[in-house]
Amino acid sequence: MTLKEQRPTAVVLVSGGMDSCVCAAEAAREFAPALLHVGYGQRTAAREERAFHAIADHYGVTRRLVTSLTSLRLIGGSSLVDPDLPVEEGLPAGGGVPSTYVPFRNAHLLAVGVSWAEVIGARALFIGAVEEDSSGYPDCREQFYLAYQAAVDAGTRPGSRIAIRTPLIHLTKRDIVRRGRELGAPLHLTWSCYTGQEEACGRCESCLLRLRGFAAAGEVDPLPYAAGGTS
Amino acid sequence: MTLKEQRPTAVVLVSGGMDSCVCAAEAAREFAPALLHVGYGQRTAAREERAFHAIADHYGVTRRLVTSLTSLRLIGGSSLVDPDLPVEEGLPAGGGVPSTYVPFRNAHLLAVGVSWAEVIGARALFIGAVEEDSSGYPDCREQFYLAYQAAVDAGTRPGSRIAIRTPLIHLTKRDIVRRGRELGAPLHLTWSCYTGQEEACGRCESCLLRLRGFAAAGEVDPLPYAAGGTS
Repeated sequence: MTLKEQRPTAVVLVSGGMDSCVCAAEAAREFAPALLHVGYGQRTAAREERAFHAIADHYGVTRRLVTSLTSLRLIGGSSLVDPDLPVEEGLPAGGGVPSTYVPFRNAHLLAVGVSWAEVIGARALFIGAVEEDSSGYPDCREQFYLAYQAAVDAGTRPGSRIAIRTPLIHLTKRDIVRRGRELGAPLHLTWSCYTGQEEACGRCESCLLRLRGFAAAGEVDPLPYAAGGTS
Repeated sequence: MTLKEQRPTAVVLVSGGMDSCVCAAEAAREFAPALLHVGYGQRTAAREERAFHAIADHYGVTRRLVTSLTSLRLIGGSSLVDPDLPVEEGLPAGGGVPSTYVPFRNAHLLAVGVSWAEVIGARALFIGAVEEDSSGYPDCREQFYLAYQAAVDAGTRPGSRIAIRTPLIHLTKRDIVRRGRELGAPLHLTWSCYTGQEEACGRCESCLLRLRGFAAAGEVDPLPYAAGGTS
């Protein structure tokens, strides 16, 4: 048995985006990662799942779980899952919660992660949530994860002791790009765009935050962008 | 507009079982109920969904959402969702967590309920969890719901103010039967059995807890039981 195999297991939520890719790179330093991808009927679900498998392949992770939340699409209330609501272009004006907010989405992702962690005996659950650049999503704040940890401690089997880990919570996108480069995270395999399928649009909120992060870090985003996007 | 229509809305999780039926009766005293049924690939899913609609019809509730959690079946780890694990007969020996425990299941149900509540502007989310007779499920303890409330407060939009309500948390099954009778809850429409589809088995843990509750309350369970069951 190698040293790597003796490490404790951690479940890592990997959407396929840049943040979760760097989060997986952080988890891999301490743990044997088990990678979890949870779709929720979002517009770019197939593209994100492709990115998830590419990242898992990169790290040689065989323990993968791909699942989906059907309820969020039924519930609606977000332009990410409701085809009748337009996705805003540009960066949020500040203060408000944008239309792409999927109400309480991260609580669903954490629930799936904790259940899987409990069944496979993982000691930690990593999520790449970012408070600073989070566009005002309430479920990206550190306070939410601290409260959720107490719910996990109270609501799982005695002895499960699953630690919620948010290594990116206080990083900016610039910091995340830099940290990803330091750790050799495969940023070229990630997908962030809210609308595109083959080429990122370069105009949606998620593309603009990503591009701004690369620019601030003095790096070039390895992803191709559609003509007319801000690349 | 009638008085009833002016009441605030509450989402009520209704599995179709006796506890959630009495919980709906409690919610209907203060709120306009919106009823939520969440299947999770359990053995008796179709039967429970039938009970849910019968209860909703009884209360004349048109605002209903039926959805399901596909991930719990994939994750496994419970005899309720894994056909390879046998359902234990009889009551738990005490102390341990039984095989029917679905790891962290109630956190999934709460997440769906909170998301729906946030989208429809509900002020409360009712769940019929019972700590006393809960067979040692960690996610049925009051401590879990208090911790989860803090996560809801931190993780939803400012101003959402969704109160998690657990009116049955400290009741015994006897108290629940009595409270259901007091409130005129339609206990004859409910379904509790973990294995049966048309007649309750009368032998599984859930049937035995239910029957013990009716006996302790000095009432007769209106449900038909299979020959050989403890009716």
